[in-house]
Amino acid sequence: MTTPLAPPRRVAAIGIGMGPQHLTLQAVAALRSVDVVLAFAKREGDPLLAVRRAICARHDVSLVVLDDPERDRSPGLDGPGYAAAVDAWHAARAAAWDAALDEHAGDVGVLVWGDPSLYDSTLRLLDRMDRPDRPLAVEVVPGISSLVLLAARHRLVLHDVGDPLHVTTARRLPEALAQGQRNVVVMLSRTVDLGGLGVDDWTIWWAANLGADGERAVAGRVGDVLPDIARARREADAVDGWVMDLYLLRGPA
Amino acid sequence: MTTPLAPPRRVAAIGIGMGPQHLTLQAVAALRSVDVVLAFAKREGDPLLAVRRAICARHDVSLVVLDDPERDRSPGLDGPGYAAAVDAWHAARAAAWDAALDEHAGDVGVLVWGDPSLYDSTLRLLDRMDRPDRPLAVEVVPGISSLVLLAARHRLVLHDVGDPLHVTTARRLPEALAQGQRNVVVMLSRTVDLGGLGVDDWTIWWAANLGADGERAVAGRVGDVLPDIARARREADAVDGWVMDLYLLRGPA
Ligand SMILES: C[S@@+](CC[C@H](N)C(=O)[O-])C[C@H]1O[C@@H](n2cnc3c(N)ncnc32)[C@H](O)[C@@H]1O
Ligand SMILES: C[S@@+](CC[C@H](N)C(=O)[O-])C[C@H]1O[C@@H](n2cnc3c(N)ncnc32)[C@H](O)[C@@H]1O
Repeated sequence: MTTPLAPPRRVAAIGIGMGPQHLTLQAVAALRSVDVVLAFAKREGDPLLAVRRAICARHDVSLVVLDDPERDRSPGLDGPGYAAAVDAWHAARAAAWDAALDEHAGDVGVLVWGDPSLYDSTLRLLDRMDRPDRPLAVEVVPGISSLVLLAARHRLVLHDVGDPLHVTTARRLPEALAQGQRNVVVMLSRTVDLGGLGVDDWTIWWAANLGADGERAVAGRVGDVLPDIARARREADAVDGWVMDLYLLRGPA
Repeated sequence: MTTPLAPPRRVAAIGIGMGPQHLTLQAVAALRSVDVVLAFAKREGDPLLAVRRAICARHDVSLVVLDDPERDRSPGLDGPGYAAAVDAWHAARAAAWDAALDEHAGDVGVLVWGDPSLYDSTLRLLDRMDRPDRPLAVEVVPGISSLVLLAARHRLVLHDVGDPLHVTTARRLPEALAQGQRNVVVMLSRTVDLGGLGVDDWTIWWAANLGADGERAVAGRVGDVLPDIARARREADAVDGWVMDLYLLRGPA
């Protein structure tokens, strides 16, 4: 006799773009199809939580907020302990989520900022939580990423005709430039610090807090507009209480 | 005395993803806000036109179909006349659109497959049509691109943690591999022809006709699954009467 397997729990990872207006009709349907939405909050008054709350309220689904486990940031981004610290944090998140799944019955939704496929750990977290005794049936609903929102804000095609597009992090931008990339989208920047990279004559299209009240955009020659960007970044932060930004860099023709 | 400028015509370039379910709430609102939608059709029974028709019918906006001017494909993709042939085609499209703008009053919508920022010429076309005597106020509404749809279909994050993502065309894939890219999304492929590129041990996540009835997906070791992909590609074509595909290639760890 074989033991019957546990039926899988249905989990929908739903890309929400940068706000309620970016939900697709498919995302709305997915949201309405689940019993509960789980979300982590980094701290009291987490502004991205407010967006999630607004979305759940509008589509009439209940939201359960989990305390986001503290992440050990002491190793720094380049330190030797970085991977281990991230791993420990993911394990703690998975445990918190496991507990929530046990507590709340039915189908579960998870709201993902932008789209789950770009610089987001939700799918890796769900992979880690999928166990033989509590299998998960994960369904991904695509969303509007900050990448296409940057392009829309500046009315841009992200690459020249037939050219490649390179997407990377601020930390790995020097590597991309050394490879000869001429068309680079940079995400996960903390400051727009392009000094010493030899890109003064390149064009930058930058935006922060896309979709939020503090949304700001600046475009121009790198050597000219960096002070404008620094100022706009401070304004975005002042309006929203947080700042996330990204930019496209393109080399001269 | 200065001559008053003509008031700009409002044009909304609306990303529609790969079907009605991918429209965002913002795209629905934009669609409902225009007086007419213009679309090109390549030929009688153009299947992508059927999707546009379904979208306009569902959101109750009228659609005007323009004959897509013939493109001279004789120079081939690498031939010396390629750029000139594309340019002539864009000029003919712009002229057709100009005429339609004169004929139909009010705000205009243009439905863009996927998102306007990736391998699409709509924004360049609109730039070309913007003249001092008939200025355009172009607004871009972002959409779900085939890139994020590929990822959703395979439940993938497109890159390893913190790594870059390189997006390119089939034609320029060899160049990307020579640069040492290990994580490449390939678009605009005509066949999945990876022989001689030294990627037999890489992993491929492939999909065709995403969002359509003939949707197919295959994943695995390149050296093993190419025949499956060729078969699935024929199936997609047989079901839908057209085939568009893309894939992520990732080098071994
Ligand atoms: C952890 S990643 C998440 C990306 C997300 N999954 C997406 O699809 O855009 C966070 C980075 O995305 C970009 N980002 C996210 N939200 C943004 C916003 N509202 N405005 C500008 N950039 C944003 C920034 O580069 C930020 O550092
Ligand atoms: C001219 S580009 C347009 C891309 C579009 N703007 C986007 O955002 O995805 C056409 C290419 O996109 C990809 N593509 C478009 N629609 C697709 C679909 N339904 N399934 C798979 N790939 C698709 C294919 O690589 C195709 O050659």
